[in-house]
Amino acid sequence: MISIEEATRHIAQFAVPRDREAIALADALGHVLAEDVACSLDSPPFDKALVDGYAVRAEDVRSDGPALRVLEEVTAGETPTRGVEPGCAIRIMTGAPIPRGAELVVMVERTETLNADGTQVKLLQTEAKVGEGILPRGKSMREGEVVIPSGQRIRPAEIGLLAELGHAKINVWRKPRVAVLATGNELVPAGEDLRPGQIRNSNGPMLLAYARRCGATPIDLGIGRDEPGDLRARLSTGLESADVLVVSGGVSAGVLDLVPGMLAELGVEKVFHKVQLKPGKPLWFGVAQQAAPPRLVFGLPGNPVSSLVCFELFMRPALERLSGQAAVENRRFTAVLSQAHPHDGGRPTYWPALLSFHGDAWRVEPLPWQGSGDLRTLTKANSLCFFPAGARTYAVGETVEVVKIQ
Amino acid sequence: MISIEEATRHIAQFAVPRDREAIALADALGHVLAEDVACSLDSPPFDKALVDGYAVRAEDVRSDGPALRVLEEVTAGETPTRGVEPGCAIRIMTGAPIPRGAELVVMVERTETLNADGTQVKLLQTEAKVGEGILPRGKSMREGEVVIPSGQRIRPAEIGLLAELGHAKINVWRKPRVAVLATGNELVPAGEDLRPGQIRNSNGPMLLAYARRCGATPIDLGIGRDEPGDLRARLSTGLESADVLVVSGGVSAGVLDLVPGMLAELGVEKVFHKVQLKPGKPLWFGVAQQAAPPRLVFGLPGNPVSSLVCFELFMRPALERLSGQAAVENRRFTAVLSQAHPHDGGRPTYWPALLSFHGDAWRVEPLPWQGSGDLRTLTKANSLCFFPAGARTYAVGETVEVVKIQ
Repeated sequence: MISIEEATRHIAQFAVPRDREAIALADALGHVLAEDVACSLDSPPFDKALVDGYAVRAEDVRSDGPALRVLEEVTAGETPTRGVEPGCAIRIMTGAPIPRGAELVVMVERTETLNADGTQVKLLQTEAKVGEGILPRGKSMREGEVVIPSGQRIRPAEIGLLAELGHAKINVWRKPRVAVLATGNELVPAGEDLRPGQIRNSNGPMLLAYARRCGATPIDLGIGRDEPGDLRARLSTGLESADVLVVSGGVSAGVLDLVPGMLAELGVEKVFHKVQLKPGKPLWFGVAQQAAPPRLVFGLPGNPVSSLVCFELFMRPALERLSGQAAVENRRFTAVLSQAHPHDGGRPTYWPALLSFHGDAWRVEPLPWQGSGDLRTLTKANSLCFFPAGARTYAVGETVEVVKIQ
Repeated sequence: MISIEEATRHIAQFAVPRDREAIALADALGHVLAEDVACSLDSPPFDKALVDGYAVRAEDVRSDGPALRVLEEVTAGETPTRGVEPGCAIRIMTGAPIPRGAELVVMVERTETLNADGTQVKLLQTEAKVGEGILPRGKSMREGEVVIPSGQRIRPAEIGLLAELGHAKINVWRKPRVAVLATGNELVPAGEDLRPGQIRNSNGPMLLAYARRCGATPIDLGIGRDEPGDLRARLSTGLESADVLVVSGGVSAGVLDLVPGMLAELGVEKVFHKVQLKPGKPLWFGVAQQAAPPRLVFGLPGNPVSSLVCFELFMRPALERLSGQAAVENRRFTAVLSQAHPHDGGRPTYWPALLSFHGDAWRVEPLPWQGSGDLRTLTKANSLCFFPAGARTYAVGETVEVVKIQ
């Protein structure tokens, strides 16, 4: 049995990004950039007005300044046809290019129009700060400069910046494909009635949703039973079509006997089995090395909470790596226990919990939980509270590690 | 000019969920439940083995206990054909139903098989705890009990629980539809070359992505210019097809002159204009009351960062309410400044920042930022750092409010 850290390291070693693909910017949200994006132009591409007002020369802004002659008006999208000469001003709107000769823009609020047709303006501002009201060309970004590095996940701000720079298509890493096979003779799909001894397949839909939630493309392999031909076909489809194959369960002795042998026949080598962890000890991990890059195979425990915890701790970081993300997101921090918690201590334990911020501190409440079959408690949880190996009762107010989930 | 809190209250008043719809569980991730989900059966539906082992009577577990006769083996998905009589045991696998007469399951690790065909077993465990190794019927959930309340957003755990309970279809709130119209004569789409004075439409793609990110259905209304017929048609399409119409920009005087009048003609009443906020002061909000429930109309500032901040502070909570979520998610907490920050203080300010957890505390670093046109800094940010009105320099180590973004 290995530690959580060792298991994480083993998995990370095989979780490398897959193919690049070019996609439309409109479809890019949630993908990871597979190239450094350089600035294709100075931004802004011209000296630009930051406010509505009058573009003027510095020398004309003074306490005894004359009324200025307004030469023209330039709005965003237009270009000035003239320069600003001494004693003159050009009316300018936010976003419009600054005319030649202008050294600052005086805000419209600090001016007074002297005649009905707006051809004469008096400045109420008496001191000139050169550059005021102007965003200089290239101030945000210089042509050629890398503005978003490869490996960054694309959020709304990245979409906005890529659009600003004119990238209608971008190169991203293909999202990892995750195939999920629920196994067990006792399983029936959610829509079917139960016969005695049967339960519904909850892990399959849950893990497919989790994969989607992590930005992966889910592939549903259905339910595997102890029919060798059918089971082998499903495993084989998973290995061919996906980057990650998840086999959930194996509590049914018949299936349990078949899966490991079949995976071996299909070229999957075991990397580890069992982790010092509660819930989730039975985690199995292997790789199919004949494919390049290797396919990852996770055997998740059949109990839904164990399966969810293993997904969160091991599969989510693996999927972030597979999707090309430069750094795995840190979802761990500390919080203060809002109630005492007796910990039996055999194994490092992740306990379903409710995390919230109160005024000045993060508090965490371990929820009443009946063990790895009790998925209901997880629908009330937003985090897992970590208790290391070693039996003791944790007191109210103690600081503990938490992991945000889902 | 109203406060951030007043603006939030005004918007909340009109942000009510829309229609219910029945969807397949496989498509439910990210939707919000529009009904209380009650348990359709006891869970587990039968007394169930928690471990692999032998189902026995308590009286047979003692230090001088006899070898027990193994009557049969039951695996998950099967049902026992016999009860457990005194002096007998039934071999049972995890997940299988407990046979009549059995009072506990002794783990296989605490037993010894006495003969090759497995018909005789000796228990190495000498004390009987009635109920050990058994998850009793209805222990997780009782038939009829509400297990997930209406208004809860569906995450992977909810998918799993709904599958376990056999809900192949569920009633959810329809996701809000958000139509985005970028306005400005200076705007061109990302794929086109720039002529002098032009810039690319970054707000449109960014806001559409933000809407998608918040679980809404985005509708792209393209770019609106000062051509009255075309502009009216786009606004009208937005009001007819969407729950929320977002008009971005209006820095171009021509369009600016047209939009408010057209919105009024189309039945949109102004609720407020301008908020005590930096960036984002020009925020405009109105409603079209002739539709029931009312359509919400946001006029977002043209500068991309102002627009992003307004989306985060005002539109995200509105979209959560529109999507039926019972409680708006709290994305605010406090962190410690990792560097000094001079705040000019005119208005309450949300400043782009990088939030991270270090050992024992959340630290926040306000990023070098050139104002509301500088979207690049937002691609490096994961939060906004809040500085209330009132000029002063915030010192390293001071605790400030932060909002997680994107």
